[in-house]
Amino acid sequence: MLSKNQIKYIKRLGQKKIRHQERLFVVEGIKTVNELLQSNFQLHCLYTTESFNIDAKSENIISENDLKRISFLKTPNKVLAIFKFPEETPIQFNRLIVALDDVRDPGNLGTIIRLCDWFGIRDLVCSRQTVDCYNPKVLQATMGSISRVSINYVDLELFLSETSLPVFGAYMNGDNVYKTALPEKGVLVMGNEANGISKDIETHISNRIAIPRFGDLQATESLNVATATAILLSEFKRGLN
Amino acid sequence: MLSKNQIKYIKRLGQKKIRHQERLFVVEGIKTVNELLQSNFQLHCLYTTESFNIDAKSENIISENDLKRISFLKTPNKVLAIFKFPEETPIQFNRLIVALDDVRDPGNLGTIIRLCDWFGIRDLVCSRQTVDCYNPKVLQATMGSISRVSINYVDLELFLSETSLPVFGAYMNGDNVYKTALPEKGVLVMGNEANGISKDIETHISNRIAIPRFGDLQATESLNVATATAILLSEFKRGLN
Repeated sequence: MLSKNQIKYIKRLGQKKIRHQERLFVVEGIKTVNELLQSNFQLHCLYTTESFNIDAKSENIISENDLKRISFLKTPNKVLAIFKFPEETPIQFNRLIVALDDVRDPGNLGTIIRLCDWFGIRDLVCSRQTVDCYNPKVLQATMGSISRVSINYVDLELFLSETSLPVFGAYMNGDNVYKTALPEKGVLVMGNEANGISKDIETHISNRIAIPRFGDLQATESLNVATATAILLSEFKRGLN
Repeated sequence: MLSKNQIKYIKRLGQKKIRHQERLFVVEGIKTVNELLQSNFQLHCLYTTESFNIDAKSENIISENDLKRISFLKTPNKVLAIFKFPEETPIQFNRLIVALDDVRDPGNLGTIIRLCDWFGIRDLVCSRQTVDCYNPKVLQATMGSISRVSINYVDLELFLSETSLPVFGAYMNGDNVYKTALPEKGVLVMGNEANGISKDIETHISNRIAIPRFGDLQATESLNVATATAILLSEFKRGLN
């Protein structure tokens, strides 16, 4: 049975501040935990109702009741694992980089990480105001992709001011992306859900691109940032296939 | 002040069965309600804490407390409106139609409706097992787009068996969509989140298409159905711009 202190320790990892202090994050569910066990990520410890046949030191077999007490999910799924933060790897500038300017919704970030994985984007660069990628809701949406995409939180303005790569920004009123020549190397900046790309970042955008709207009726809404990222990554990559 | 019976009546519209019996659905939030007021949708009645300056017969000014009692949201946003189901309009076969084979997640359906609106898709055809488009969570994700896309729930197998249009199906292992000639008129079928396109529907697919994966590391996950729809609709439409 888990002690009160153990439960409290795990629950505190729900807070961004504590996660970054301890450099540990929580993942739940058999599928995602298995994917991370098979990745380069290092396991800190694992609490499960059924053995995963890993080394006994890291594995704690617990009751369903105890799992409920430590889980962040409404319906816990057999296992909760604590992994170590990966080592930060240097950003590689010889291919397409995706940069996020204050994306706040965990589901959107999770979907974008999954899209980066699909489209072979190795580096995702996030402004410091972007939602934490180790937020449990983000991890739930990434489905294990997080182990295959290197994510760096940086001063985005400084990062963009220092790069010699062309910087593409997604706008409502930019150049038609279908008619724009897109390079293999560059940075694609996606903006905040409500406000788009901020003024400070805008000064570093060399190419404003947009996804044309095809509806013949007047529509007022923009595309969601995750679906816009899907379409733009597809455009950057389609010629390489 | 609202009567117990009024509150009960509105709350019952949270159930699909009751919505379809009454042919009424609930929308919340100033932005979406305003969009629907400006559309062809017919208002049944509106409960609000601030006047919308519409005809007094339909408008009920209520207290914040009463709004809380009828709202389906954790934090109600000033207005709850009840609209009539639109008249079913016949499906038009002279352009691209999107068909959903048992998409179950309300957020996915909402995002797909919004994408149809963006890409000028007039007709969205749903299998009867697809989540109800008047589900409050769907409506929250559509952001008013629902008034610009005609949605029909049909026996999808029968519908596909009767169409003379080419039927494209999204698969993990179909032809590379970037290298496939895509027509202006046709049906694009998207499958269920967990199981993809069902065996019964598969017999009616004339062209299996897939979005290639670009990652060089082994990744096990598929794309989410809404992001896959975004990419495929972009591919169908990009040549027309």
